[in-house]
Amino acid sequence: MGRPTIVIAHFEGFSALDETALDRLDTIGELLDRKPLHSWDEPRAQELLGSAEVIVGHWGCPLFGPAFFGAATNLRLFAYAAGSVKWYLSDELWERNILVTTCADANAEPVAEYTLAMILLANKGVFPAIDRESHRTAWTPPADSAAHGNWDKTIGLVSASLTGRRVAQLLQPFDHLRVQIYDPYVDAETIEALGATKQESLVDLCAQADVLSIHAPALPDTHNLIGETELAALRNGTTVINTSRGHCLDLDALTAELESQRLFGIIDVTDPVEPLPPTHPLRNLPNAVLTPHVAGSQGTELARLGESVIDEVERYAKGEPLRNPVTREMVDRIA
Amino acid sequence: MGRPTIVIAHFEGFSALDETALDRLDTIGELLDRKPLHSWDEPRAQELLGSAEVIVGHWGCPLFGPAFFGAATNLRLFAYAAGSVKWYLSDELWERNILVTTCADANAEPVAEYTLAMILLANKGVFPAIDRESHRTAWTPPADSAAHGNWDKTIGLVSASLTGRRVAQLLQPFDHLRVQIYDPYVDAETIEALGATKQESLVDLCAQADVLSIHAPALPDTHNLIGETELAALRNGTTVINTSRGHCLDLDALTAELESQRLFGIIDVTDPVEPLPPTHPLRNLPNAVLTPHVAGSQGTELARLGESVIDEVERYAKGEPLRNPVTREMVDRIA
Repeated sequence: MGRPTIVIAHFEGFSALDETALDRLDTIGELLDRKPLHSWDEPRAQELLGSAEVIVGHWGCPLFGPAFFGAATNLRLFAYAAGSVKWYLSDELWERNILVTTCADANAEPVAEYTLAMILLANKGVFPAIDRESHRTAWTPPADSAAHGNWDKTIGLVSASLTGRRVAQLLQPFDHLRVQIYDPYVDAETIEALGATKQESLVDLCAQADVLSIHAPALPDTHNLIGETELAALRNGTTVINTSRGHCLDLDALTAELESQRLFGIIDVTDPVEPLPPTHPLRNLPNAVLTPHVAGSQGTELARLGESVIDEVERYAKGEPLRNPVTREMVDRIA
Repeated sequence: MGRPTIVIAHFEGFSALDETALDRLDTIGELLDRKPLHSWDEPRAQELLGSAEVIVGHWGCPLFGPAFFGAATNLRLFAYAAGSVKWYLSDELWERNILVTTCADANAEPVAEYTLAMILLANKGVFPAIDRESHRTAWTPPADSAAHGNWDKTIGLVSASLTGRRVAQLLQPFDHLRVQIYDPYVDAETIEALGATKQESLVDLCAQADVLSIHAPALPDTHNLIGETELAALRNGTTVINTSRGHCLDLDALTAELESQRLFGIIDVTDPVEPLPPTHPLRNLPNAVLTPHVAGSQGTELARLGESVIDEVERYAKGEPLRNPVTREMVDRIA
C-alpha cells in the first residue's frame, strides 16, 4: 500500500510521540507535519486533513465534527494512541469506512501493574502498617495480622476487560491466590484460559473476595455497578480497588462503608467528581488510599502507547491485519 | 526408611503447623506429641528428644546446647520451617551427621512479592501521590511525573540470594524494566537465566538503578554493604528498598540521604535497632515508607512454610534427596 500520508493530533508536550517516534512514523509513511494539530478549523489543519490518509491521535485530539469531515476526504485510518476512543466514533465515521484502532491493550498494562501491586500489598495489610509506622494515623485495621498474607485468598475481578484479563494473567505466578472474574459477556473457557474461574453472580463475587478490583468499562449499564448491595456483600476487612472509572462505583455508598471502617479502599478514579474536593471525607480516612488517576499510562509509560500506535500504522501500511481494530459492533461495550 | 519419629519445637500459636498439617506429619511419620517443645531441659522434652529421629522446628525453637545434644541421641534430621537457620548450626551438629534443611525458598516468596509490589509502585511515584491525596503530607518528590512509570527503568538487585533470584523472576513479565544483579559469588550465566544481567561493581549498580533493592544475607562482610559511598552513587529520586536485614544498610547514612529528600526509602528492616524508636527521624519523613518487618511470611503465609517443611520430611522419609539441604560448606554464606 506504499507510504501513507500521516498527520498527528494531540496536546503539546506529550512524550508518547517523541522525536525518535516521529522519525519512525516518517519512515513507515510520510509525516506531513511534525507539529501536532489541536483543532480542525485552522487553515493548517484544513490543509493537512485534506492530504492525510492516516491520523495518529492522542490525548487532546479534537473530536470529529463538520470541519473535520469536510476536510478529511482521504482519511482511511484513525489510530488512537490511548485507550478510550468511543468519543470519536460516529455514524459518519463508519459510513466513510474509516478504520479505527486504539492502544487499549498497551494502556491496560500499567493499570494491571498498579492493580497487581495493590493486591499484593492489600493482602499483606501493608498500608495500615505504613501509616502506623510512619506516624500518619493510629488506626488499626479490623482484620488482625493472622488474616494477612498472599496465601489462600480470593481476588474478585469485575469484568474480563483487557485490563481485567491482564490482571488475571499477572496473578498467575502467585500460588494460592484464587482469581474469580464476573463478566456476563465472556464465557467460562476464555476466563479459565486466564487461570481464573467464571463467577456468574456479582454479589457472590463480592461475598467471596478478599480483594475486589473493578475493571469494567463505563457504559450506561455499568453506572454504580458496584453499589450499596454489592458493597454490603463484601466481608469485613475486604479491600476494594477501583482503577476503571468512578462511574462504575457508587461513591456515596463506598464512603459510608469506609467511614464505618468495615472495608479498605484503594481508589484511583471517582465520580461524579474527579479529583475529589479537598474536604471530601475519603481524603481523611486512614482506610482509604487515594491516588490521583495515575494507574494508567503516565510519564515514561507514554512511550509504550507511542510504540503501540506506530506498530498499528506499520501494519496498516503493510496491508496486515490491525491488532486492535475497533468496529461499529463493539461500540456499545468498549471502555 | 519407614515412618520416622517426629517432634515439633516452636512458639505456641503459630499457624504454620495447624491440625491439618500435624495430621499430615503424623501420616508421613509418627508424631510423638502434638504439643510443641519450647525448651530442651524439661522432662517431657528430654524424653521426646531421646526418641526423635526428626525435629521440625519453627520460630521459637530453642537453640541447641548440652541439654539438647545429651538427649537427642537418635536425631537424623532437623527440618526448620523458616529461613534463617544458621543460629542452630554447630560443629557438634555436623559431627553427628545430622541433616539440616530449611524453608528459605518458601520464605523468599512473600519477600519477593512485597518487593515486586513496591518496585511497581515506586516507579509510578505512587507513595508521594497517596500522601498528597490523603492529606498526609505536602511534600513533593524531586522527580516530576514525566520520570514516573514502569517503562525504561533499571532495577538493581543486591545479591542473587533466593529472594533476589525470585524478585528477578517475578519481574520477567514486565517489559522495559531492566534488572541488574550484583553478586560476586554468582556467575553471569546463572544471572542471565533469571532474565537479568550481572553487574560487577556495586557502585555501578547503584549509579544505574532507578530502584535499588537489597537481598543480601547478614554476614560479617555484608555489614553496611550499602553505606555512605553506595548511597551517594544513587541518582536523585532513586528508591532504596530493604527487606533483607537492617545489618546490610547503613541506617545513619540512609537517614541523612532521606532527610535531604534526595532519595526515597521503603524500609522493612533496620539495624542496630528494630523497631526504630518512636522519635527516630525516619518515622516522620514523607519520603520514607516504613513497614514493621512484614515482608517475610506472616499470617496466612505461614501455611506455606508448614507445607514446605512437611514436604521435606516426606522426602526424607521416602529416602529422596532433600530440596533445601544446608551443608557445613554453606554456613559462611547463608542468611
